[in-house]
Order: sequence, then structure tokens, then C-alpha cells
Amino acid sequence: MQLLRLGEPGSERPFVRAGDGTVRDLSGLTSDIDGSFFASDGVARVAAALAAGELPEAGPEFAGARAAAPIARPGKVVCIGLNYRQHAEESGAEVPTEPVVFMKAPDVVVGPEDDVLVPRGSTKTDWEVELGVVIGKTARYLESVEEALECVAGYTVSNDVSEREFQLERGGTWDKGKSCENFNPLGPWLVTADEVPDPQDLGLRLWVNGEKKQDSSTKDMIFTVAEIVHYLSRFMVLRPGDLINTGTPQGVALGQPDPKPYLREGDVIELEIDGLGRQRQNVRQA
Amino acid sequence: MQLLRLGEPGSERPFVRAGDGTVRDLSGLTSDIDGSFFASDGVARVAAALAAGELPEAGPEFAGARAAAPIARPGKVVCIGLNYRQHAEESGAEVPTEPVVFMKAPDVVVGPEDDVLVPRGSTKTDWEVELGVVIGKTARYLESVEEALECVAGYTVSNDVSEREFQLERGGTWDKGKSCENFNPLGPWLVTADEVPDPQDLGLRLWVNGEKKQDSSTKDMIFTVAEIVHYLSRFMVLRPGDLINTGTPQGVALGQPDPKPYLREGDVIELEIDGLGRQRQNVRQA
Repeated sequence: MQLLRLGEPGSERPFVRAGDGTVRDLSGLTSDIDGSFFASDGVARVAAALAAGELPEAGPEFAGARAAAPIARPGKVVCIGLNYRQHAEESGAEVPTEPVVFMKAPDVVVGPEDDVLVPRGSTKTDWEVELGVVIGKTARYLESVEEALECVAGYTVSNDVSEREFQLERGGTWDKGKSCENFNPLGPWLVTADEVPDPQDLGLRLWVNGEKKQDSSTKDMIFTVAEIVHYLSRFMVLRPGDLINTGTPQGVALGQPDPKPYLREGDVIELEIDGLGRQRQNVRQA
Repeated sequence: MQLLRLGEPGSERPFVRAGDGTVRDLSGLTSDIDGSFFASDGVARVAAALAAGELPEAGPEFAGARAAAPIARPGKVVCIGLNYRQHAEESGAEVPTEPVVFMKAPDVVVGPEDDVLVPRGSTKTDWEVELGVVIGKTARYLESVEEALECVAGYTVSNDVSEREFQLERGGTWDKGKSCENFNPLGPWLVTADEVPDPQDLGLRLWVNGEKKQDSSTKDMIFTVAEIVHYLSRFMVLRPGDLINTGTPQGVALGQPDPKPYLREGDVIELEIDGLGRQRQNVRQA
């Protein structure tokens, strides 16, 4: 199933796209697609309601509505750095021997077509297409990698927008360049895990102004989704509704020859992952 | 005023301690002490209701109730590292020329008397008494340091519990050692900003098993609260209900001679800040 949310910020409504392509309203079943929804077996409840024909079609007021992030504001956004071999190389970093972990502020998650904002004073705003993983079941000190995928509710497209000067040249940890306003477009859909047979076999691509910049596959991840969830569960409790950004492949602006083509007002970013849909953002000055 | 929350996790209720020492129920005025409360001028509404004698005393069922964190789960927890000169020195780090910023996952905020958990596999769990700053008004690209304190709702005691091996020796940014389960006891109260005439003149102290480990003053901060809020507002939007941990003074286990006295099951941590109250945590194995 494809779960999605439509509506303006603060008044999003939950929907599901049925097998016949119709978009059906979940408001009668849940107030939102959030931690409580996942924790209360929401995905199975939606499937049952769909099968029983209980879900009304989305009203006409939602035709052309804003696509919101497919999940409500996550409890936390955990990110994995340098998780594709060629991206580690282009960044001048060593290939990590265990996952590199950092955080994004949860309130920078926005819709898949919302503007990407270049922060004031920024000259190095960069793109990062990533496989986003949404947690469906609490993961705490998991004993094996095998258990990990059972904790995943689904997958989505994530743009881990980054400001490289703030991240790398301003003293301190990466977080300063990762949590600027609107720095995490997410969506368009959350594709439930049952419809993604192999999260390690998904092509992912990103274009800026129509020019392809990133083109890789989750096959090239250094640490798999299952390994990441297992690993993280030793350092923090992953809770339903949390988001993990699993790292970006090569092709970011940081890795290009000088002058590096960092994002500027007027640029258009498009990104997609096989089966998970496509995003499109206009770049604007904050 | 002292705002506080009482009750078990998931069913906390909001209260205020009045000038006469009585604890008064805010449930009729707000569902919680959270971002919406601050954004809707909640502090002023509480003051008015108190003055008008409209707030009932807390029911007897709250005598002896668990002290929860004085604010609901923050949208984000932003932390400043190495913000006291002597702590930077004891950590073997250079005194920073601009604030060092990292994040804690918001879901590690717990009550001021909840257990501190030593993560499984940890041998370097450490304490950090800090002045916690709660945002009351959105701070986005503030133009001056002067505006910054107007965005602060109040102050509280924060224990920025840290695992030094995870933070410093496991590859990547500090966050891996900062977001373990229960790693941010907060409270007991949020003291509103009007009752803290000078946030840069507060003594703060921490004891382990009755032995004083940290004893300093916010006078020794490298970057003041106002400078921190102003600085952060250039890199991220601070929103009502967000928490900033402003850094810890010297005296953490990391800074002691070997063998460093890291926390173990059975230890008791106590911490206090002038006028902001006192915390006490038992240390347990996760």
C-alpha cells in the first residue's frame, strides 16, 4: 500500500492509494499517520478496511491538494553518513567500519514538493537522495539483524539537504548543517514494507535542473537497512514513526570539481527511488 | 512561576506552583505544557488565572505522584558542547570560537527523578549538569542578541547524560553517545524567564553518591544564553517548546584521572541550579 498525507501544514489528512489507483480517506480510521498509528497496528487495519471496501474515496477538495510528508512529524530523524562506498570516496572520507550516525531536527521534515530553502549566508547548500526508512515497531537492543526488518513499517524517498560549510567548516558536529529550515523533503508516499521485497535492490536517482547528478542503487550501501536498524537499536530506542535516512550515493555537489555546483535560488531538484515515487522541489532563498 | 508536570509517562498533567507554595492544576487551561501552550501565550494565561484565583489546587491523587519533565516532549533538543572554559580544557579540546552544536533525540527527555540507564555494553556513561533553556517564541534569523532572550519561556535543570566511548570513539559525530534511553532527565520545574533576572549568574552543582563533582556558575559560560539563541537561529528555526542544553562545566568523569569514575548501577546522581530546583536519579543497568 501507499500511505500518504494531503493538505496544508498543520491540517494534513491521511490517505491510502488503493490497488485500483483510487485515493481513499483514512480519517475515519486514524487521525494521522504517526507513531500511535503504527504502534496500534495501523497498517494492518488499513489493509483490512481496504479489503472490506470500508474506505471512502478522497473528496474533490483534495484534488490538487498539497502533498505533505507521508508521516506526521517523526519523534526523531536519525541519519547514516557515508553509507555508499563511492560517496565516501568523493567526500574525501574513509569508508566507515561502523555506521556514522547523526541527527536531523524532526521539524525540518516537509512535503515532497515543498520548497528547499537556501539558508541565509549559505553558499554550499547540497542535495542528497536517500532511502527513508520509517519505524513501525519499537526497536531496543535487538538481538539479531534478522529481527530488524520486522521493525520497519515502510520506505519512502528522502532528500537529506545539507549545508556543507555549516556541516564541515563551522566547528563541531555535522548537525549544524543538517537541520536548517525545510531541509528534509519526504515522500510522496510511504510504501509499506510488504510491497518492498528487497530494500537493497532499489535504484535511486536525482536531477538538478534536468541534469542527472546521482544514479545508484541501494545495492551499493555499505550497511544494509537491516544492519542499520540493528546497530542503532544498541545506541537508542527506535520508536514507531521515527525516520531513518540511510545515506546518499555519490554525485552530490560536494564531490564535484570546483566550482562546485551548489544549489541556488531558482534551481529545481527532482529525485526518485524505484517504486517509491518522485519528488520535485523549487529552490528558494530563505 | 514554576510550571511542572506530574503523573506517569503518557498521562502527565500540567501544574503551576503558586507564590504561596500551593500546587495548582492547569488542566482546565491547557492539555499540556508544550509548544502550543507557549505559542498561545500560555505563560501569561497562567499568570492571569493565578492572579484571578481561578486555578483549583491539585487533587490528593497527585500527592507523591511522579515528577515528569516540566515540558512535554520537545520538538527538538539542541545541545551546546564545550561551553565552559574549564570543561573544554578537561576534555582536551580547544576553547571553541563559535558554539559547538549537536542534537539529542527528543524522546530521551525524562523526569528529574527517573532512572538514568547505563546502556548495554557501556563502560563510560557520564553526567553533565546543564542549564536547560525552553523556547517560548519562534526564533528564526534573529537580527540581534538583544532579541534572543525574548524568545525564552524559561529555565530548568538538565542532565545531559553522555556515553563517552559511543560519543568519541565509535566513528562519526557525537550524537551516538547522546541519545541513549533516558539520557536527559529534565526538571523539576520550568521557572519562567521573568523570575530569572540573570541567566548568567546561576550556580550549578552535581554530586555522585554524595560527593560533589561539578560546582560552577553560568557566569563561566563561553557563549551566553542570548548569544546561543541568536546563533542557533541562523542555522535552524527554534520553535516554542524546543529545549536547548547550554553546556556543562568542568567536573565530568571524562575529565578525571584514570581510572575515571564513570557511572555504574547503584550510583545516585543529584544536581541542582540556583532557584531552579534539584534532581535525583538512581543509576540502573539498561
